[in-house]
Amino acid sequence: MFDNRISLLRKKMIEKNLDAFLIINIEGSSKPSSYYLTGFTGSFSIILVTHDDVKFMTDGRYIEQSEKQAKTTPLVFKDKLSDELRKLLKFNKGSKIGFESNTVSSNIYLKIFKKFEDFEFVPAEDLLLEMRRTKSEDEVNFIKEAAIIAEKALQETLDTFKIGMTEKEFAAKLEYNMKIFGADTYAFETIVASGPRGALPHGIASDKPIKEGELVVIDFGAYANGYNSDITRTIAVGKISEKQKEVYNLVLKAQMTAIESAKPGMKYSDLDKIARDIISENGYGEFFNHSLGHGVGLEVHESPRVSKVSDVISKPGDIITIEPGIYLPGELGVRIEDDILITEEGHEVLTSFDKNLIIL
Amino acid sequence: MFDNRISLLRKKMIEKNLDAFLIINIEGSSKPSSYYLTGFTGSFSIILVTHDDVKFMTDGRYIEQSEKQAKTTPLVFKDKLSDELRKLLKFNKGSKIGFESNTVSSNIYLKIFKKFEDFEFVPAEDLLLEMRRTKSEDEVNFIKEAAIIAEKALQETLDTFKIGMTEKEFAAKLEYNMKIFGADTYAFETIVASGPRGALPHGIASDKPIKEGELVVIDFGAYANGYNSDITRTIAVGKISEKQKEVYNLVLKAQMTAIESAKPGMKYSDLDKIARDIISENGYGEFFNHSLGHGVGLEVHESPRVSKVSDVISKPGDIITIEPGIYLPGELGVRIEDDILITEEGHEVLTSFDKNLIIL
Repeated sequence: MFDNRISLLRKKMIEKNLDAFLIINIEGSSKPSSYYLTGFTGSFSIILVTHDDVKFMTDGRYIEQSEKQAKTTPLVFKDKLSDELRKLLKFNKGSKIGFESNTVSSNIYLKIFKKFEDFEFVPAEDLLLEMRRTKSEDEVNFIKEAAIIAEKALQETLDTFKIGMTEKEFAAKLEYNMKIFGADTYAFETIVASGPRGALPHGIASDKPIKEGELVVIDFGAYANGYNSDITRTIAVGKISEKQKEVYNLVLKAQMTAIESAKPGMKYSDLDKIARDIISENGYGEFFNHSLGHGVGLEVHESPRVSKVSDVISKPGDIITIEPGIYLPGELGVRIEDDILITEEGHEVLTSFDKNLIIL
Repeated sequence: MFDNRISLLRKKMIEKNLDAFLIINIEGSSKPSSYYLTGFTGSFSIILVTHDDVKFMTDGRYIEQSEKQAKTTPLVFKDKLSDELRKLLKFNKGSKIGFESNTVSSNIYLKIFKKFEDFEFVPAEDLLLEMRRTKSEDEVNFIKEAAIIAEKALQETLDTFKIGMTEKEFAAKLEYNMKIFGADTYAFETIVASGPRGALPHGIASDKPIKEGELVVIDFGAYANGYNSDITRTIAVGKISEKQKEVYNLVLKAQMTAIESAKPGMKYSDLDKIARDIISENGYGEFFNHSLGHGVGLEVHESPRVSKVSDVISKPGDIITIEPGIYLPGELGVRIEDDILITEEGHEVLTSFDKNLIIL
């Protein structure tokens, strides 16, 4: 698996005229890339890929782990980053070294990279981000697994739900259940936003009790085997109004129509438009104030963007979320989100939790 | 609280000859600084402090929240970062703008800062990091609260412990209980490392069942009100050997002696040495292979360093961990960790969970 990735990276290095590609992973700063390229899950690694070699360095904590995961005898980091890089970067004058400018701090750039006067350090994070966009079968399966864990946990949590439980209790249980069902951790801070809080774009679970007659937006995901799932369901508590049902059904229609339309070769802005038009035609356009979705994988948010300004063209191997919503300030919120894979034939939905309005 | 901090920052700006200090907080990249200076807890903010003004910008998601927390009418971020900064940074040619080079990516530095040819962008994260080192009474209380939450949660989890429970189940319960007792989240991924896994320097909870006769290292913390606690206890399950007890008591002696010695005006390397010498004199020196401790506050690891190479001098207001350990590969691990405050008179221990060897 990883050899192929190194080979593909080298091809891209040639296209970009790079002599080397450097990953600096400090306190997990580049864990997704480090993992993607070598299988190593630790929070400290320095990886140097050249056209005929790969050098892998970690610190004393991770020697055994890197031998197992990256199948290599690591160089051992002892000193200061600047000293270790001096030893590692032995190239001809004028060599070009690609690096991930989105994860390397300007501190490292200014204090270390700039001191190497003989080399040019070239921002090149796009090489790996592009590669990561197209998911392999293994990666699809990991994300499916992360979805299954999250969905089992949601079912278990709903089964023990009681009116009056706080949002935070619900979130804490949901997160607990994800771990018990096999998650390494949760993918992001769980959103449980009930009643009027549902309209908050950032409704991290609060101490508010969940009450009869409310809609509850639950946005959560599991992180397992290095991959994330990202799911939202909106559920109803007790008797709800006709308006609440109307908004729910409208979001559901927009969401399902967008999913049904998803296939390779379309602009993601057009996919966004399909859902947005349905919501707008019914008078709620101004209340759907975020993008339709985003790529998901080693990171919860990654390439491609799925928004009204995204001119990225869909292709097989993309895994994206489809998550339209309607938020009526002070009143209610509804969002429904699935993860889908773009396939040669069209798409496959990776999440499967019931979308008929669940009334607790 | 926050006005004083702005005033103090301005004094430091004058010392460093800075015309402005810029905080860029994207997806939480500088949340601790943003919170420290304004009280705002959101994950997106741009703050510009000059000698006579403070400009606060956030995006559509956080308008209400920033009005409440930062007590300001925010500028609203709409465009691209480069465009917004163009509008915000109106200074004379040659002006010096301090920024946090440890949290600003080299991507932003190269693609945006470098394009402002009229100004000099100066790495200046130390200004705030130094200020954050000395904790106010409020901050001490927040950390005490985070410690109490963590300790209550540990007690509750130990009360329901059963032999054969996996490390991960234990960790999941502990994290659940922290939330229920008031944590916003956990401070870091909980370490539960039992038996030989205790010797792993990074024993994130695994699927290993916890067995009779084992020592279990539990390293965890709560995050509440923006502040972290960081505690380790090692507990025994059933009957353990004389050697296990000996190692436990040695670590405890080293830990308590270091705590008793802690006071203002000492080099932190000397404090590290006090604990290290006790362990070395008893033949286990090579198995205590990390630092004695670290500062804790808005971040789990922050200034000051407490290690054998730290020439930082302790002073009142420092909050540090004291956490010696002994790790015998393939056999066992013991670590005991408290959070302490350096006071005018000496020190105050902020954590209080029993350190007599608990046998479950």
